Amino acid sequence: MSDRKPDIDRIFHALGDPTRRAMVERLSTGPVSVSQLAEPFNMTLAAVVQHLQILEESGIVRTEKIGRVRTCRVDPKGLDAVQQWLEARRSPWEKRLDRLGDLLVGE
Amino acid sequence: MSDRKPDIDRIFHALGDPTRRAMVERLSTGPVSVSQLAEPFNMTLAAVVQHLQILEESGIVRTEKIGRVRTCRVDPKGLDAVQQWLEARRSPWEKRLDRLGDLLVGE
Repeated sequence: MSDRKPDIDRIFHALGDPTRRAMVERLSTGPVSVSQLAEPFNMTLAAVVQHLQILEESGIVRTEKIGRVRTCRVDPKGLDAVQQWLEARRSPWEKRLDRLGDLLVGE
Repeated sequence: MSDRKPDIDRIFHALGDPTRRAMVERLSTGPVSVSQLAEPFNMTLAAVVQHLQILEESGIVRTEKIGRVRTCRVDPKGLDAVQQWLEARRSPWEKRLDRLGDLLVGE
């Protein structure tokens, strides 16, 4: 099991690909094996594994091999990192909107 | 002024670069001219414009030329698109956590 921390550069890069986003969408409904994850995609298992590796290196997905089966799951910390970045970008506008709101109601 | 709609592939790609994220961070405090935006970066204006173009094509940044000055600002719709994608990924876990919570309090 990989123990990488979320890396915001790699996360944004990883999520810039529609196949990898579709994989995260699939995994966000629950953990699955690599072959289950590959099922809906019209590509070789090797290609799926390559995408999975990029997701894993970004810290957004974890995989764990138990016996002969490798199970994949989303690591919420990866999505948290994106969320925090977005929230930090929004707050200045929201603060300004709040101030505008206060101004309009005469406070 | 560009009239592109947010494109989630391009947005994630655009934000995968630390310089472009720093530009969005700068713009999230308010609109600035291209030369003001370029100031803190140790790179040519041409390189800044190239990064800006990638941000603009993704729909996350808008630029508008008035007279001789091109002003850049963040388009909130770009960040909204990322936010919506993230929220859609989170809800299944949150629903499961809610159900677990209900189970634990015996409801």
